[in-house]
Amino acid sequence: MQKIEEIIEYEFKNKNLLKLSLTHSSYSSENCNENLEFIGDLILSFIVGIYVFKKYPDKDEGFYTNLKSAYVNKNYLNSVAKKLGISRYIKYRGIKPSNFSDFIESIIGAIYLDGGLKKAERFIKKFILSNEMDPLIDYKGELVKVSRQLSGKLPSYKIAGEEGQLHNKKYKVVVSIEGIRKKGVGEGRRKKEAEIKAAKNLLQKIFPEKF
Amino acid sequence: MQKIEEIIEYEFKNKNLLKLSLTHSSYSSENCNENLEFIGDLILSFIVGIYVFKKYPDKDEGFYTNLKSAYVNKNYLNSVAKKLGISRYIKYRGIKPSNFSDFIESIIGAIYLDGGLKKAERFIKKFILSNEMDPLIDYKGELVKVSRQLSGKLPSYKIAGEEGQLHNKKYKVVVSIEGIRKKGVGEGRRKKEAEIKAAKNLLQKIFPEKF
Repeated sequence: MQKIEEIIEYEFKNKNLLKLSLTHSSYSSENCNENLEFIGDLILSFIVGIYVFKKYPDKDEGFYTNLKSAYVNKNYLNSVAKKLGISRYIKYRGIKPSNFSDFIESIIGAIYLDGGLKKAERFIKKFILSNEMDPLIDYKGELVKVSRQLSGKLPSYKIAGEEGQLHNKKYKVVVSIEGIRKKGVGEGRRKKEAEIKAAKNLLQKIFPEKF
Repeated sequence: MQKIEEIIEYEFKNKNLLKLSLTHSSYSSENCNENLEFIGDLILSFIVGIYVFKKYPDKDEGFYTNLKSAYVNKNYLNSVAKKLGISRYIKYRGIKPSNFSDFIESIIGAIYLDGGLKKAERFIKKFILSNEMDPLIDYKGELVKVSRQLSGKLPSYKIAGEEGQLHNKKYKVVVSIEGIRKKGVGEGRRKKEAEIKAAKNLLQKIFPEKF
C-alpha cells in the first residue's frame, strides 16, 4: 500500500479506499472498485473538459470533445496505468484484467473521496494531462453527421472482404452514403477498426481540407 | 437579463456569459451557447453523480448510472427549462428550438465560469435535484449485456409492423436473442420508442423478478 501511495504521490487517510480502488469485481463483487470508478470517471471528464476548454479558449465544442476523448479513453488510460505499474497491485481472481483504465478512474474516485477535488485534480494533471495529445476524432460519429446532412440517412457499412483464419483475420470494409459516388475503404484486424478507417477515408475524400 | 437572473437566482458579474448561454447556434454559430453547454454538461454529470452516490451509499454503480440518467437527459432537463420559462429568453433565427435542455446546461456552464463550482452546484440542487426521481433504466443497454452473456451476440430487432401515414405512424418491433425462445414486443410512434419497449418486454420475460 505504501509503495502505491508513493507511485501515485498521494497518502490516504483512509487506506480502505485505496484498497477498494484496486480490487477487481472478480475478487469481490460486493467490495470492488466499481463505485469508485463511477465517481472517478465523472471527475476525470469534468477536470479534463475544463482543462481543454481553458487551454484553447478559441476552439469549439467539437474540438474540446475530441481532445477530451484523447485523454478519457480506455487505451490512453491503460497506458497511464502501465507506466505507473498499477497492474502489480490489483486484487483479482481468475483471469487477470487486460485493461487497467478502470483502476485509474477508481483511484481518482478514491482520492476525491479521501482528499477532495483539489487532490484528485492534482493526480489528473500530473499523470494524465502531462502528455500533449492530439484530438481523437470520432470518425464514425462525424460520418453519421455528414451523412444525415447530405442524404438524411445513416452511412452504410459493408464487409467487402475477409482474409485469414480465426486469430489472424483481416477485414476490408466499404462505407457509402446514399447519393454520393465516393466510397470509403478501410482494412483492419477487427471489423470496428476497418469501419473507423473506412469512415476516415470517406471523410477525407469528401472534405480533403478538413480531415 | 435581470428577469432571467431573478428566475435562476443568480446574478452574473459578466452579463455577456448569460447572454451567450441563451444564444442558439442559429442566431450566431460563432458566439453561441455550445461551448458553455460542453462545460455545463460535465459539471451537471459530476454534481448529479456525486449526489446520487452520497444519497444512496449502499447501492451499486448500475443504480447510480440509472438514477443519474433520470436527471441528466433531454426530456427531464427540457421540463426544467419549461418550468423556469427559459424559452422566452432564447435568441435564435428561423425555427424555434423545440427542446431547451441544452440551455439548462449552458446556463450551468455560464454560472460556473462566472461564479465557480459552488454557485453552479447551488443552481443544480435547487432546480434539477429538487425533484425526487426514479432510476431511468437503459433497457436496450441492459438487453445488450444480457444477450452477450446468454448468446455472445447482440440482440436482433426487427420491424414487425408499420401502420398509419407520415405524421401518425406506429411501429411494432420484435426483439430476440439467439438461442432464446422468448421474444420481446413493443409498439411506439418512433422506431426507437418501440425498440425500448420491446427490450423492456423481453427483459421482463427473462427476469420477471428484476425488471
